[in-house]
Amino acid sequence: MALKGVLRPGHVSLRVLEMEPALKHYTEWVGLIETDRDDQGRVYLKGWDEHDKFCLVLQEADRPGMEFYAFKVLDDATLDQYEKRLNDYGVETRRVPAGDLKGCGERVQFTIPSGHLIELFAQKDQVGNGLPLTNPDVWPDGLKGIHPTRMDHCLFNGDSVPECAKLFTEVLDFDLTEKMEDPDGNMVGVFLSCSNKPHDIAIIHEESKGRLHHVAFWLDSWDEIRHAADIMSKNYIPVEYGPGRHGLTRGLTIYFFDPSGNRNETFCGGYIRYPDHPPITWTADEFGKGIFYYGHEMVESFVSANT
Amino acid sequence: MALKGVLRPGHVSLRVLEMEPALKHYTEWVGLIETDRDDQGRVYLKGWDEHDKFCLVLQEADRPGMEFYAFKVLDDATLDQYEKRLNDYGVETRRVPAGDLKGCGERVQFTIPSGHLIELFAQKDQVGNGLPLTNPDVWPDGLKGIHPTRMDHCLFNGDSVPECAKLFTEVLDFDLTEKMEDPDGNMVGVFLSCSNKPHDIAIIHEESKGRLHHVAFWLDSWDEIRHAADIMSKNYIPVEYGPGRHGLTRGLTIYFFDPSGNRNETFCGGYIRYPDHPPITWTADEFGKGIFYYGHEMVESFVSANT
Amino acid sequence: MALKGVLRPGHVSLRVLEMEPALKHYTEWVGLIETDRDDQGRVYLKGWDEHDKFCLVLQEADRPGMEFYAFKVLDDATLDQYEKRLNDYGVETRRVPAGDLKGCGERVQFTIPSGHLIELFAQKDQVGNGLPLTNPDVWPDGLKGIHPTRMDHCLFNGDSVPECAKLFTEVLDFDLTEKMEDPDGNMVGVFLSCSNKPHDIAIIHEESKGRLHHVAFWLDSWDEIRHAADIMSKNYIPVEYGPGRHGLTRGLTIYFFDPSGNRNETFCGGYIRYPDHPPITWTADEFGKGIFYYGHEMVESFVSANT
Amino acid sequence: MALKGVLRPGHVSLRVLEMEPALKHYTEWVGLIETDRDDQGRVYLKGWDEHDKFCLVLQEADRPGMEFYAFKVLDDATLDQYEKRLNDYGVETRRVPAGDLKGCGERVQFTIPSGHLIELFAQKDQVGNGLPLTNPDVWPDGLKGIHPTRMDHCLFNGDSVPECAKLFTEVLDFDLTEKMEDPDGNMVGVFLSCSNKPHDIAIIHEESKGRLHHVAFWLDSWDEIRHAADIMSKNYIPVEYGPGRHGLTRGLTIYFFDPSGNRNETFCGGYIRYPDHPPITWTADEFGKGIFYYGHEMVESFVSANT
Repeated sequence: MALKGVLRPGHVSLRVLEMEPALKHYTEWVGLIETDRDDQGRVYLKGWDEHDKFCLVLQEADRPGMEFYAFKVLDDATLDQYEKRLNDYGVETRRVPAGDLKGCGERVQFTIPSGHLIELFAQKDQVGNGLPLTNPDVWPDGLKGIHPTRMDHCLFNGDSVPECAKLFTEVLDFDLTEKMEDPDGNMVGVFLSCSNKPHDIAIIHEESKGRLHHVAFWLDSWDEIRHAADIMSKNYIPVEYGPGRHGLTRGLTIYFFDPSGNRNETFCGGYIRYPDHPPITWTADEFGKGIFYYGHEMVESFVSANT
Repeated sequence: MALKGVLRPGHVSLRVLEMEPALKHYTEWVGLIETDRDDQGRVYLKGWDEHDKFCLVLQEADRPGMEFYAFKVLDDATLDQYEKRLNDYGVETRRVPAGDLKGCGERVQFTIPSGHLIELFAQKDQVGNGLPLTNPDVWPDGLKGIHPTRMDHCLFNGDSVPECAKLFTEVLDFDLTEKMEDPDGNMVGVFLSCSNKPHDIAIIHEESKGRLHHVAFWLDSWDEIRHAADIMSKNYIPVEYGPGRHGLTRGLTIYFFDPSGNRNETFCGGYIRYPDHPPITWTADEFGKGIFYYGHEMVESFVSANT
Repeated sequence: MALKGVLRPGHVSLRVLEMEPALKHYTEWVGLIETDRDDQGRVYLKGWDEHDKFCLVLQEADRPGMEFYAFKVLDDATLDQYEKRLNDYGVETRRVPAGDLKGCGERVQFTIPSGHLIELFAQKDQVGNGLPLTNPDVWPDGLKGIHPTRMDHCLFNGDSVPECAKLFTEVLDFDLTEKMEDPDGNMVGVFLSCSNKPHDIAIIHEESKGRLHHVAFWLDSWDEIRHAADIMSKNYIPVEYGPGRHGLTRGLTIYFFDPSGNRNETFCGGYIRYPDHPPITWTADEFGKGIFYYGHEMVESFVSANT
Repeated sequence: MALKGVLRPGHVSLRVLEMEPALKHYTEWVGLIETDRDDQGRVYLKGWDEHDKFCLVLQEADRPGMEFYAFKVLDDATLDQYEKRLNDYGVETRRVPAGDLKGCGERVQFTIPSGHLIELFAQKDQVGNGLPLTNPDVWPDGLKGIHPTRMDHCLFNGDSVPECAKLFTEVLDFDLTEKMEDPDGNMVGVFLSCSNKPHDIAIIHEESKGRLHHVAFWLDSWDEIRHAADIMSKNYIPVEYGPGRHGLTRGLTIYFFDPSGNRNETFCGGYIRYPDHPPITWTADEFGKGIFYYGHEMVESFVSANT
């Protein structure tokens, strides 16, 4: 097949302060589907159109934030290859045994220079998307809330953005699609893709390590964004920005928060990207427009409310 | 980068009976952008968000139809590799020199079992998408008509569908995403992807060689489909089906015709596909629903009006 | 208040061959809300955003079609006034006592020249729209299926179109908004409004009496039309045309059928109309475009499948 | 006809600091159509789907704000009637001769308790909507920018809100559709309709006289709201809020400013209203949600940036 190497975002593990309100948020309102729980108290969720067993793992903790963000690679051989390339590049890796996350095969974990824990894996149980493989309809019955089709990407905050960009492009074969530069020409934000999407991961500079900016879920249309905003308003979900648009990626968006303070995004649109497209640069005087294309003003909490 | 091998549909060359009405159709109404002409009288056109110089080549002829359909591959080494794999598989290839199509590098041509002429190429002049690479807006000014962002795919009619599917998957690394089966279980339709799109090429059985069903252009939303339908109605462009939807690919669609009788499609939506997704099968009793999800009835001209 | 006289379509009574499949159609798929039943076996339904108790009354019969179509008038005095004007104009009227339809006040019935039974009434129980009158959200929870906000209009088939138009405009204060003329200049279709909507009732010529073309339900957007089309396809509801558009009224539309063969429409859009707008005329050579703006072709069943 | 009395908002006259940038804003970006100028330097503009000659009159002044807001009434007899009712109610009126505004008949002017100058008129030249009256398309060619169909409503700031509400409902036959109450139950905001729209005029309390909150222009869809937001961003038009939604009226919205600081709105949606619908009340604790349904937070400039 044409798509090899790193296929897509596989899952993200979030810390939540209390499981019950978190589940209400992610299942009733966001509309993900719970697929399993484990004896560590972790709950597994997926978007309706994902075939794999889960894209989100919630676990209780005394502070919000992200535990790890994982990418699915094509197969076991690819997993071995990337582990070797990481080690050769000087990145230490650690194997987490199959079954540590229910239904997930062996995972290769490593920490990137910004302090975030990244995983690669090649195997995960497929539970299907609720539609038959013969003569399927276009969506299944029984969807709830905002019901995104899938987890789309994560955006991290941390230092060492250029070093992270180098690692993802040189070792993991991602493309740099867009970047943000400060007035001195330093890369303070990077958008990276392993697909035809404008980003599968992004990192924006902050003098910190390992913080999460947001987890994004994919919606199919601007009208689904409107429907999502209705649901947020009806349920008093805190909204930071949107419905709006990014200049970066051209994506349509809402930023909002789960009950623990983890930022979520509903994202849709953006261009279809290919590796021979020239990267786009955003200069500091237009960061407002780049991030908040509708309004242009930087929202203060965009910087302060990270977890 | 993660995307290697065959990147995307690069261009399609169509025969038109008269250039003037064809250009009015493709530039004023469809809203492609003319980028060049050559001394053979061929006219080169592109969608606004394509960086490459052209995606559509029109040339006058005494009958409509398709001359060739080309895919862009990653680089020259990839081009050589695929040529060798084709030859090893028993497919004869022919090199067309760089510059034969203006701004396009060397092309490797070959005929697939259904009788269609396919090309691979690695180089094409990039003319950009009308937006700067620094702090770009989300669309450029001056767009006309339906203004699709890009050419999305072609659908062919011909015999030997299984043999074509085999060639595209085994030699050119495409994925089989969906297939149509007759009551005896024969593959009479195949949808193939080299990307995250549900198809980059499709072939539906017909006892013939080398005929074109349609060339599709990408729109970003169901509302742009409505706008496209308005423009078709205002200008008396013949519409065969739509606004509608396919069960196959889930895409939103309008089928319509250029003045020479070549079928066009405006297409948007469809799922985000990965190579580990199981292929979907459509059985003969549900072809109507698969192709015309809104209405379910096979449109007679869908079979008869091919070029 | 500025709106006086005839306020709006109040209800339509349809004959259905079997109640159970009819109810499945109108409640599960169309998504109307059942509000009552009576000892004649009639079932009362409403759109979610209607405050009045019902807009649709279903009753079993051995053939499909319409029993009567009713308009709500401002108050009892207005009802008396219109009854007198009808009588003065030579139209016989009949009073149906309050309570004959549950929750509905006295109705003034009369037959128009096309053979359709029309009603006027001033009182109906208000059951609300599922939202509080203080700080309401924009839609209530628990909506099902296509969930139109309200019944929008009916279109009749019958003879004597000009005489009907005269009655509605001269006696009932409707505006003629659009008309269809045959090649001899005869009015063969008329669209009439008592509001800012492009039509509240329409009549198209047929050599018959009292037949129903369709009952239309209001949707808020083109995207809700798409969602409705998805639901029709998933449930194998027969669709005659659409998603599409009318040149007449500019409305966005789907025509489909209930299990008894009564035609329904989901309708949205259209212009905001005022009484000083000049009426629009459609000539016979453009009836296709006027009715089926997307496609232009008259659908055969449009004429034959009336009830 | 059913619609009598006050038909609709007819025009609003705005003061702008400089005509040239104002015209660029209202014609190139908002996309109104200039229809005339007069010897006082006033410029006349209309939305494309308005038949009357103008809905907006711009004139240069040393401060922004509104000169007057006018409603069209059904006919001359209605104009006389309302003048008499105003006088009987104790409101002084003044006749402005026909032709004072080009193409507009005699206007009856009066000041409401909040200090705003209101006009009624019965005659204005009709220039049409760019479409023929026979077999029209659904929109004309050549539209620019955001291209609203029409001016929809104005919102005023001033004191004496209850007294204004009383005047509009008792003398001018408007309906009170929604109201805002402070914790003591005082009416501090009122929404008034003379049509099936949720408001044709609104007034929100401020300790001042005669100030304008915004002039709103009608768009047909949420997608046109997105398109409008794109145009505002591309052209650095200051946006205050949106794309968003109001709980009040349910309307979809963007608030933005013209170069002189006059607030504009693009508005679409909202419910279809009838005079027998119960009025809706918003309590002070939910004003944020009522006005800014997406986000819930009162935007500071909403109160301070009035003209």
